Amino acid sequence: MTKIIDPWGSELAEDYDKIVKSFGLGVFDSSMFPEPNRIMRRGTVFAGRDLKIIAECIKKKKPFYALTGIMPTGDKIHFGNKMVVENLRYFQEHGAETYILVADLEAASTRGVTLEQARQRAMDFHIPAYIALGLDPEKTIFYFQSENKDVMNMAYEFAKKITLNEFKAIYGDADPGRIMAAVTQVGDVLYPQFKKKMPGIIPVGIDQDPHIRLARDVVSRVKSKYGFIPVSSIYHKFTPSLEGAIKMSKSRPSGNIDLPEDIKEVCKKLKRAKTGGRETVEEQRKIGGQPEECMIFEMFKQHLIEDDKQLNQIFQDCKTGKILCGENKQRACELMTEFMKDFEEKLKKAKKNVNKLNFIKFT
Amino acid sequence: MTKIIDPWGSELAEDYDKIVKSFGLGVFDSSMFPEPNRIMRRGTVFAGRDLKIIAECIKKKKPFYALTGIMPTGDKIHFGNKMVVENLRYFQEHGAETYILVADLEAASTRGVTLEQARQRAMDFHIPAYIALGLDPEKTIFYFQSENKDVMNMAYEFAKKITLNEFKAIYGDADPGRIMAAVTQVGDVLYPQFKKKMPGIIPVGIDQDPHIRLARDVVSRVKSKYGFIPVSSIYHKFTPSLEGAIKMSKSRPSGNIDLPEDIKEVCKKLKRAKTGGRETVEEQRKIGGQPEECMIFEMFKQHLIEDDKQLNQIFQDCKTGKILCGENKQRACELMTEFMKDFEEKLKKAKKNVNKLNFIKFT
Repeated sequence: MTKIIDPWGSELAEDYDKIVKSFGLGVFDSSMFPEPNRIMRRGTVFAGRDLKIIAECIKKKKPFYALTGIMPTGDKIHFGNKMVVENLRYFQEHGAETYILVADLEAASTRGVTLEQARQRAMDFHIPAYIALGLDPEKTIFYFQSENKDVMNMAYEFAKKITLNEFKAIYGDADPGRIMAAVTQVGDVLYPQFKKKMPGIIPVGIDQDPHIRLARDVVSRVKSKYGFIPVSSIYHKFTPSLEGAIKMSKSRPSGNIDLPEDIKEVCKKLKRAKTGGRETVEEQRKIGGQPEECMIFEMFKQHLIEDDKQLNQIFQDCKTGKILCGENKQRACELMTEFMKDFEEKLKKAKKNVNKLNFIKFT
Repeated sequence: MTKIIDPWGSELAEDYDKIVKSFGLGVFDSSMFPEPNRIMRRGTVFAGRDLKIIAECIKKKKPFYALTGIMPTGDKIHFGNKMVVENLRYFQEHGAETYILVADLEAASTRGVTLEQARQRAMDFHIPAYIALGLDPEKTIFYFQSENKDVMNMAYEFAKKITLNEFKAIYGDADPGRIMAAVTQVGDVLYPQFKKKMPGIIPVGIDQDPHIRLARDVVSRVKSKYGFIPVSSIYHKFTPSLEGAIKMSKSRPSGNIDLPEDIKEVCKKLKRAKTGGRETVEEQRKIGGQPEECMIFEMFKQHLIEDDKQLNQIFQDCKTGKILCGENKQRACELMTEFMKDFEEKLKKAKKNVNKLNFIKFT
């Protein structure tokens, strides 16, 4: 099989190769899409399902949609959310009708908050945060899961199309709560097609692929009745932990950066990050660093440096020993400060205008 | 354990004893309730859960509710539905707030009809039929499952409270569709308590007990959050098939009577019914018949004869050989003709007024 293209390398790449193979995904080819975004160009977006259909819609200006969900718990988002929004934004800018559902039902049932609290959190933080990351507030359509009868009714019907064993094959386990959440998500994923049949693209982290598979299975089973078009999906890698784990995690705060997070704390963490540096400065000057093992370089690549030439220059300068880890950590701190400041300003503005957004009203 | 009281006997009684024992039900005692109805007095109502709470509400005129669901498929109901309505009516007449939900979601997902068709069938036939059986049209509250967001949201939350193994222990199997239907039914059963905590009674055939058990399990698990009161239930036996099977079934039409059904056909079936008659008239005159094995007598007891003394007289006259099977079959045909005519007249009237009923409007 084709190896996942990651032009600047990463020690994590091999795992993603396996995932593509075992999940039966298509390797992502950025040349299919006009003006690919930063994470598409750099191998962070690494796989997809039925991406040709979406590329075709963009090329021929045919209608399609892009959709994601917000889980309104806590008062932070993470880099995974950021990448989802960046891909969503890419498709929005290339013609997609853009939907964001607030998974208040799921939040209420799993996190011990009421529906009202979940709704409030979404309005106070999560929705503004998604807008702050660059979505067009006028072109993005929102709805609350708990209000969407159509989705719930459809979920009910979808549940009858799947056996317990099929469910287990996709999800590993099959507790009633998980089943209910999963079929509701299938309803959400297909919701834009309830009124207009069109292709749709769901940008997700690879851990969300079971939902995509379930949605595609269901589509094929209700084909004669509803004629839904199987949804396409596009997968990005995780942002690795600053300490080198495959994924940032709140349970290891020293390797994790939240959005927003106090920038002084962030810079402290960046200074302690795992790099590809050598034992001594002399050695590094002589044989060069290993950017493909460096979490600071991963942050540059995935999030902090937009310009490919500039990123490439850093890669080369590290490889040849021209720049050292300390300089790059300092640069990461500066770029992160800039990013965090910009995000917080946009967040503030988005919070003020949250009531003006397009929320679907259900009767 | 106490034997189920069935004052006029029945060869089917023994099975119900076993059910009471294995399901952990309470034996029904009609002396707990004022003016018990025909099926309560005669052992057709044979068991319940937490019936004292309901008896107490009736006695002290405290608020409580009674609830059942309508499955809007086909254009007939059956004697099981009739008994549910009779019990519902009993509690309505003794102070219960009365709810009937139309299970249009379940109908749509299992019977290949659309929600609109299910709704239409309910309006055209099932709802009027329930009213025709004697419910007070002004005091009965209806809603459509597919419109009730509150129930669906609650079902979502309930699903998280049950493990797959617990579900299997209750239902035997646990396909996703069944899980979804079951947790939705739990939402329905508790719905009247969403706004006002009060005891509720659910009249059901014994085959519906798993839903009651699930609802009661869920109530105990969300007690600290919602404080629901566990629902009570009351169970009636099946109306046996005219051929002697424990239950009428559409798959054996010769033993089955629908409501409504052409009375000529019905009388033909009654004439061929299984009785407790002897080989010859002479023998029967001499040693008497066996009303406890007679399906005609079961019809008298469960449905056709209101007066206990009159029923008792028939029992005695059969036992002593004073009346023969032919006479009783003729009497059953006459009583059924009367019942069917009355039902169809009331149905016609209820159909005309169906739009004036109290349907909950959801916003």
